[in-house]
Amino acid sequence: MLNPQYQSCIQACSSCALTCETCAASCLREDDVKMMARCIQLDRDCADLCAVAALLMTRDSPYAQLACRLCAQACRDCAEECAKHAHAHCQECAQACRRCAEECERMAA
Amino acid sequence: MLNPQYQSCIQACSSCALTCETCAASCLREDDVKMMARCIQLDRDCADLCAVAALLMTRDSPYAQLACRLCAQACRDCAEECAKHAHAHCQECAQACRRCAEECERMAA
Amino acid sequence: MLNPQYQSCIQACSSCALTCETCAASCLREDDVKMMARCIQLDRDCADLCAVAALLMTRDSPYAQLACRLCAQACRDCAEECAKHAHAHCQECAQACRRCAEECERMAA
Amino acid sequence: MLNPQYQSCIQACSSCALTCETCAASCLREDDVKMMARCIQLDRDCADLCAVAALLMTRDSPYAQLACRLCAQACRDCAEECAKHAHAHCQECAQACRRCAEECERMAA
Repeated sequence: MLNPQYQSCIQACSSCALTCETCAASCLREDDVKMMARCIQLDRDCADLCAVAALLMTRDSPYAQLACRLCAQACRDCAEECAKHAHAHCQECAQACRRCAEECERMAA
Repeated sequence: MLNPQYQSCIQACSSCALTCETCAASCLREDDVKMMARCIQLDRDCADLCAVAALLMTRDSPYAQLACRLCAQACRDCAEECAKHAHAHCQECAQACRRCAEECERMAA
Repeated sequence: MLNPQYQSCIQACSSCALTCETCAASCLREDDVKMMARCIQLDRDCADLCAVAALLMTRDSPYAQLACRLCAQACRDCAEECAKHAHAHCQECAQACRRCAEECERMAA
Repeated sequence: MLNPQYQSCIQACSSCALTCETCAASCLREDDVKMMARCIQLDRDCADLCAVAALLMTRDSPYAQLACRLCAQACRDCAEECAKHAHAHCQECAQACRRCAEECERMAA
C-alpha cells in the first residue's frame, strides 16, 4: 500500500466497478432491456471510471484526486438511475455506487 | 515499436476495440435493444479482449500470442453475430472483427 | 452475481490485479529499479490479465475460462519472479499471485 | 461514430495510449531504468487516462469532456518529462502527448 489513506477508497472503487459490471450484464439479460438502456450506459461509464480511479490511487498517482472527483460524479448519477429499478442487481448497485461516491468525495476534497 | 512484427495486429486490435465499443453503445440506443442484447455482450467481451491483446503486444509480452488466440475467437464470434444485423454499426463492426481475427490468427500461429 | 461459482475467483483476480499494480508502482520507487525491471513487466501483464479475467467472469462470458487459463499462467510466472525479491510488496504479490493462480486453475479446469 | 466531433480526439487518445505504453515498456529495457522511473510512472497514468477518455468519447458519454480535461493534464506532464530524455521512444511519446493534449483541450473547452 503506497498511500494508506487511499485504502478504503480503493476497495470501494474496485468493488463498485465489479458491481456496476454485474448490473450491466444482468440488465442485458432482463426482459425489459429497453427500459434498462440508460442504466446499462451509466453502469459502464461508472465501472470504467471506478477502475481507473482505483488504479491511480494504487499507484499514488498525482491524478488520483481528480479521478476520484470524476468517479464520484458518475457514481452519484448511476446510483440515482439504479435506485429507480426494482431488480436486485440495480438496488445493490445503487448502494455500492453511493458508498463509492462518499469515499471518492472524501478523497477528492 | 518494441516488436515490429506486431504493428499491423496492434492497429487492428486497437481499431476493433473502438469499433466494438461504438457498436455496443449504438445498439443500446436502437429501438430493438432486446434483439441486440447478444450483440452488445459479444461487443463488450471482444472490445476488452482486443484492448488487452493490443496492450500485451505493445509491451512485447510473453502472453501476447495467447492473448491474440483468445482475441481471435471473440472476434470470430462477434463478427458472426454482428453480420446478422442490418444496422450500419453492426456491419462495420463485423468487418473490423473479421480483419482483427485474421491478424490475431496470424500472430497466434 | 450472474454465476456464483466464479465468486471467489473474481475476488482473487480483482485483489491480485491491485496487488500487482501496487508491486509495480513500489518497485519503480526502489533504489534498485534496474533489478526490478522483470518484476515490473510481469506485474503489469499479470494485473491486466487479472483485470480482464475478473471482468469476463463477472459477465459470465463464454471467454471467462480461457481468460482464467491465461491469467493463471501470468500469475505463476509473476509469483515465481516476485518470490525472488525480499521487498515486502514483492512477497505479498507472490502470495496474491499464487492464490489467484489456484483459483484460476480451478475455474479453467 | 456516435458523435463525429470526437473523431480526431478519439484517434489521438487511442494512439497516445499505445505510444505511452510503448515508451514505458521501452524505458524498462533501458540501462538507465532508474533515471526513467518518473517517465514510466507518467507514461502509465497517461496511457490509462487516454484509454478511458477514448472509451467515454466513443460512447458519447456525459463524462467524456471531464475525462478529456484530466487526460490533457496527464498528457502535458508526460510530454514535459519525455521531452527531457533523448531516447527515440521518449521523443515520439512527447510528440504524441502534445498532440493528444491539444485535441483533449479542444474537446474539454
